[in-house]
Order: sequence, then structure tokens, then C-alpha cells
Amino acid sequence: MTIQQAKEYSSWIEVSNSSDFPLFNLPLGIYSSDNESSYAASRIGDTLIDLHALHSLGYFSSIDLPDMIFAQETLNDFISLGKATHREWRARMLEIFGKDCGDLRDNAAHLEHVLMPVEKAEMMMPVFVPDYTDFYSSREHATNVGIMFRGKENALMPNWLHIPVGYHGRASSIVVSGVDLHRPKGQQLPNDATEPVYGPSKMMDFELEMAFITTDGKPLGQRIKTEEAEDYIFGMVVFNDWSARDIQKWEYVPLGPFLGKNFGSSISPWIITLEALEPFRCASPTQDPQPLAYLQTQGERTFDIQLEVAIQPENAEPSTVCRSNFKYLYWNMAQQLAHHTVNGCNINAGDMMASGTISGPTEDSFGSMLELAWKGTKPLTLTDGSTRKFIHDNDTVIMKAHCEKDGFRLGFGEVRSTILPAIND
Amino acid sequence: MTIQQAKEYSSWIEVSNSSDFPLFNLPLGIYSSDNESSYAASRIGDTLIDLHALHSLGYFSSIDLPDMIFAQETLNDFISLGKATHREWRARMLEIFGKDCGDLRDNAAHLEHVLMPVEKAEMMMPVFVPDYTDFYSSREHATNVGIMFRGKENALMPNWLHIPVGYHGRASSIVVSGVDLHRPKGQQLPNDATEPVYGPSKMMDFELEMAFITTDGKPLGQRIKTEEAEDYIFGMVVFNDWSARDIQKWEYVPLGPFLGKNFGSSISPWIITLEALEPFRCASPTQDPQPLAYLQTQGERTFDIQLEVAIQPENAEPSTVCRSNFKYLYWNMAQQLAHHTVNGCNINAGDMMASGTISGPTEDSFGSMLELAWKGTKPLTLTDGSTRKFIHDNDTVIMKAHCEKDGFRLGFGEVRSTILPAIND
Repeated sequence: MTIQQAKEYSSWIEVSNSSDFPLFNLPLGIYSSDNESSYAASRIGDTLIDLHALHSLGYFSSIDLPDMIFAQETLNDFISLGKATHREWRARMLEIFGKDCGDLRDNAAHLEHVLMPVEKAEMMMPVFVPDYTDFYSSREHATNVGIMFRGKENALMPNWLHIPVGYHGRASSIVVSGVDLHRPKGQQLPNDATEPVYGPSKMMDFELEMAFITTDGKPLGQRIKTEEAEDYIFGMVVFNDWSARDIQKWEYVPLGPFLGKNFGSSISPWIITLEALEPFRCASPTQDPQPLAYLQTQGERTFDIQLEVAIQPENAEPSTVCRSNFKYLYWNMAQQLAHHTVNGCNINAGDMMASGTISGPTEDSFGSMLELAWKGTKPLTLTDGSTRKFIHDNDTVIMKAHCEKDGFRLGFGEVRSTILPAIND
Repeated sequence: MTIQQAKEYSSWIEVSNSSDFPLFNLPLGIYSSDNESSYAASRIGDTLIDLHALHSLGYFSSIDLPDMIFAQETLNDFISLGKATHREWRARMLEIFGKDCGDLRDNAAHLEHVLMPVEKAEMMMPVFVPDYTDFYSSREHATNVGIMFRGKENALMPNWLHIPVGYHGRASSIVVSGVDLHRPKGQQLPNDATEPVYGPSKMMDFELEMAFITTDGKPLGQRIKTEEAEDYIFGMVVFNDWSARDIQKWEYVPLGPFLGKNFGSSISPWIITLEALEPFRCASPTQDPQPLAYLQTQGERTFDIQLEVAIQPENAEPSTVCRSNFKYLYWNMAQQLAHHTVNGCNINAGDMMASGTISGPTEDSFGSMLELAWKGTKPLTLTDGSTRKFIHDNDTVIMKAHCEKDGFRLGFGEVRSTILPAIND
């Protein structure tokens, strides 16, 4: 699938050239219009498509879909149907909404049930996340953090070039864009102190990541190989792995991050499928040393996805503080998933696997405040003149992701969340 | 609740003195008799009680319980009803099965629906586990591992006496007693090698743990304090945190254990409630230094639970290799849960929080092969004459837990699982 081919799909629903959601995208999400019932949705331009309404009106009668598959609080059951069904659904959507198809376009009564302006819908968590894993796959990020904490000579740990290092995170506190979080409290060891103290984190940070969402996998004990891994990936979202650096620093030895992370992670509401991203495939960085056979991949196994992070202080304009790209990641998703299951670990529909902070080669492409302000030694100046070493109370962090090539744009929209002051108890 | 009071509860169902399941226990589990439908159950002696049958016959009409609450694949919905309802259920069960109550005892038609021999039932996973956390709360275990890897002087990490160190684990691969697991494959760095290799783990280990299962908690952002923490704990199981030491050793820096653990963890099928354990409350070890205020607890906050581990080679008798006790743990469950939520992390019904390996003060009370055979330097000799540094293929590991005092016994039964050879692919 080339850019030219993808561009040729155009809809009778209006889409501006700057929209992340041309017909070819067809993201999936869950929306509520009344805070009570929720339904699966897709989106073209600024128009939301109620998939349950569409299904109820018979538009998917050619596909083997349960009646209530889109009338649920999450997409998990749809994801469980598997990639073959997802592709049938996608093909049918391209047909229904293609500019020459009048079936829905010319049926005013149907249109009224199926379409609505996106601004009238509240987007909910698109999936229930049974298990969440966070990788650490950016060489630039691992190197930056390594230099800060262990010096330039020992920046990368000995295992880093051999395995896509990862760890388990907390699934319960993953929230959708628009849900604000309180600054976490916890135990920290202040610099030069010998005894820890308890209080609100003083080093609130974001981490610019993307996450993929899996389908059901194989039975416990069986592995998924790199060459089949993409068949088990449903789609991707933008992921803000909020981090309280002072809590993390004191707690993480020897078993890894815990309360410095699990107070919340934020995701963008629309899942973009791998099929939609297909025209933007590209190569990963060369891997040297060559990984062990079970981690080797062939061909272009990553995507050219432009990323940016902005900080918006209360009552001020947002300032972009980072521009990065998903393609910088050293380990690709097929390698991550093959590694995760090589010991027989089982995966389920809705599992979320985040990339780790996506830092690029230049200082303005670093994906966290820890790196951008280099441990607080180089504060950033925002457009309102204020400075930041870390995130302040009432700051909103906005992450966006999109692909763009030869005048064709397709994207993820954004994930946005405000850090509220710590709860006083 | 004293031992004497608990002892006075006796049932018209026969219970031997050596049984883990006197009337006072009333554990909860999920069973299947036909591999298709599953129901909630309790147990007295060797008799299984079908709770859905009991409910359908009207025995719980005094309690506000949904009709199908016990006709489900997990106990999660029952757990979500909260501790007040659980206590009503327990009081009613003590009544129905008390020796002087003839309502069920004398109704042959009802008995036929409600009771069956436990050996006819297959016990299933009692809960769906939304999130799983593993603590590291045994001072003896942390010290042993510390001595092995960092020497006696630096055995305990600086944070260990200040926080109940923990990390997130994989929920999807937690299996019930009786489910066997294949030896995991993965990447390891052999001793003195400079390049990693791929293959089956050569250092398969168990970890003797117990886990508590939570009720629903508070909304994201709010903490659970130590003094209210036990109101959010439904009950406990025995937990085998299988560990592949060679995989773990190579991967765990800096983000903690991952594939060395997530190929599987095994639990005992019956959940024992805190109410049943009440007569066996006891004090935890004295904590010095005193923890920060948010981690302090009053009174007896742990339980005297005797633990043992046996290894059974194929076609041989089991050999007991470890005897330990839950009360050795330095950090109690109220402290673990208060710490876990102090940053606002939310918990849900069915979440599982394991204790970490429960090692005691003596060499025969260490809770893992790593410690018992001291990194392979002191192999154990089993009763069949064979020796073990770690777990061999086709070894079955059996963990048991029970409380016993003044001639009154109450326990958990066992968790048993066999390590099958690695899958050849």
C-alpha cells in the first residue's frame, strides 16, 4: 500500500487536508453521548460514526459480527474477533464511506442515526486493559538517563543492546485523554538527606510514548515469533507514561518502577490500526550487535510517526517542548512482542504495550522533562516566559502524533491531561 | 475471636481433626463438575458446597444477593459486593451448617443438589485478576539474596527498611493449582560469557509466597490508610512465584523482573477470608527504624500461618524442603496496601498482591531453591537420594499452608504444579 493508493480513498464526508482522520484512517474508539450508554465509533474528519447504529441498520450484514458487538463499554470483544474480521470491517467501511457509494450518503433517515459531530461525543477508554507492559526501547533515552545516573562510559546497561528491556506496569490506572490526575504523594529521599520524607512529588514528569494493543494470543506456554507478531497487533495509541522522578528514584532498586508510575498513565482515545499506518512503514535503526535469532526481523517493521509534546500552563498558550518520531526506536514492536512471549507468557485482547520514552538524537527531540531540562540543570522557557524543570500544578501536557508524506496526512489526534494539585489528606 | 470460640463452631458435616476445612473456615472457590459450567463453592471437610444451588433453594434470602452471583466463572462480582455482605454470607453459612440446624441437614432433596465430594470437582481459578503486584517483604529473603549478590555489608538496599518494596507482575499467567507449566526459554548470560545465549532456563526455582485478594477500592487519586486497609482485603491464597533465575539475572537491571517471572505463577484454589484467620492473629517483627506515619499500624496485623514446600520427583515421594511462617514477614498486608495506594493508585476486586518469598531465620525455612541450596553451592538431597540445586523437569512443587493452635486447625490446602520440559520449537 503506497501513499498514492491510500490518498485515492476519499469520502463523501468532508475532511480538511490538516485533519488526522481521512477516510483511509478509520480509527476505533468508544464514545458516550449521554454519560450512560457507550458505543463503538469511528471517525472521518470531524464527523463521528456510531458503529452500533450502522450495524443495527444492516450495513455489516456481509460480515460475521455479533449483534451487540459495538454496543459495549470497550472494544475488547471486537478485538477478540481477530485480524481477519477487522480487515473485513475495514474494507466494508472504505466502501460505505467512499465518495461514490450512495447507500448511506443518500439515506437521510439513516444518516441521522449514524453520524454526529465529534465535539458532541465524550470519548471513553477504548479498551479494558487486562495487562500493561512498558518497554524501554529508545537507545537515545536509555543513553541519556544512563549518562545522568552512571556517567558516559557506563550509560547503556550490558543487556540493553541484546534484549528489548521491559517491565510490567499498572493497568488499572490507565486513563483516557481528558481525565486529569492529581500530583502523587509518596516517599522520597531528598538530596543529601539520610532519612526519607513523605509528601507530594516535586519532580512530576511526562514520558512521550506510543503503545500497541494486542489481540488474543496463543495458549500459555506458546510463543509468538517475530514474523507473525504483527498479526497479533490490533492498533496503536499515543501514551503518556507520567512519572514522579523523586518517588521513582528512591523506590526502584532492585525491582523497578512502581509508585513513581502507577498513579496514572494517559492514552489518546482513538486506536489507529496497523492497516491504516501501512503507507508509512519504514526501517528501524540498524542493530549492532545483531540480536539473537528469536529477535531478528526482516523488512520494514516500524512506522514514520511524527510526535510532539506541548506544555500548557493554566490560562496560557501551549508551548511545544519536544518533537520526536516513533521510527527512532531501536527495538520494533514485532521484536517486543516476540520477546515478551518467548518464555510462553500469554497475551489477551486489549493488552497494552508501551514503547518507552521516545527520544530522538537532538536535544529538542528528548521525550521527557528529565532529559529536556537535563535533570533540572537547563530549565525550559515557555512562550509565556515561565520556566520549567518539571511539570507544575495545573499544567496541561498535550501529546500529538501524525504521519505525513507527499501531502497525505493521517494521525492519532492527541492525549491531553492536566496535573491537579496533590490531594490534601 | 479466640481459638476457643472458633473451635465451638461445629458442623453436621463430618470433619477430621487434621482437615484444613472446619466449619469456621468457609473458604470460597470456583468449581466445575463437567468442564463446561462453573459455580462458586465453599467446603467443609472433604465435602464441597455448591453455593449457587444453596442460593437457588432460597437459603440466602435474608441477604441482598443477585440471583446469579454464584453462577459465574469467577468470584469477582461477589467480591465487589463488599465486606459487609461477605460477613452476612459468612454468618448465614455458619448458621446453615452448624450442628444444630436441621433446615438443610434434614432435607434429602436439597442435600442432593448442594453437596458433593470434593474429589469429584475440578477447582478453577477463583478470580479474574485485573492487576497483580508482588512485594518483597521478607527481611530474611531480601538479606539472603543481598548477601549472595552484593556481600554481607550491602545486603539490604537503603530503601528496604523504609518501604515495602514491590513491583508489578503479569496477571494473565497466574494459574490455579494443578495446571502444569513448561520450563521457560529465554535469553541468559552464562557465567564468564560475554555474549548472551537463548535456550531453556537452567535455574528453575519456586518462591514460597502468600497473596491477598482485594475488594474494590477508592476512586483513582484517593489513598487507603493502614487503619482501613483490612476492610479492602477479601482473603488469601498460597502463591508460588515461579522464577527462572538465569533469565531474571540477565534482564532485571534496571527495570526489574520480567520474563524470569511472567511465564506463570500458581495459586491454591480456595480463598481463605480474613474473618476465618482472625483467631490466628499475631504480631509482626518489630520495625526499626520506625516507618513514616503513613505506614504505621497498631495492634496485631499479621497471622500465624505455617508454611511448607515439598519437591516430588516423577514417580517418587515428596520431600519437604522448607518450613516457614507467614508471620516472619517484616511488612504486613495493611502496610503493603497503604503503600500501594498512597500515590492514588486505584485497586479493584480480584487484584492479587503477593508477599514476596517468605524466608524465616533458619536455613530450613528459606523459601526458594536459590536460598535453600545457596546459589547451587549446597545441593539438597531428597528422600529418593537425588539432589537438587534447582527444579528438574517433571518435578512437582507442592506448597501448603495452615494455622494450628490449641488443637484447632484451619488451612489453605495446597498449590501443586509440575514443571514440564521446555517446548521444542
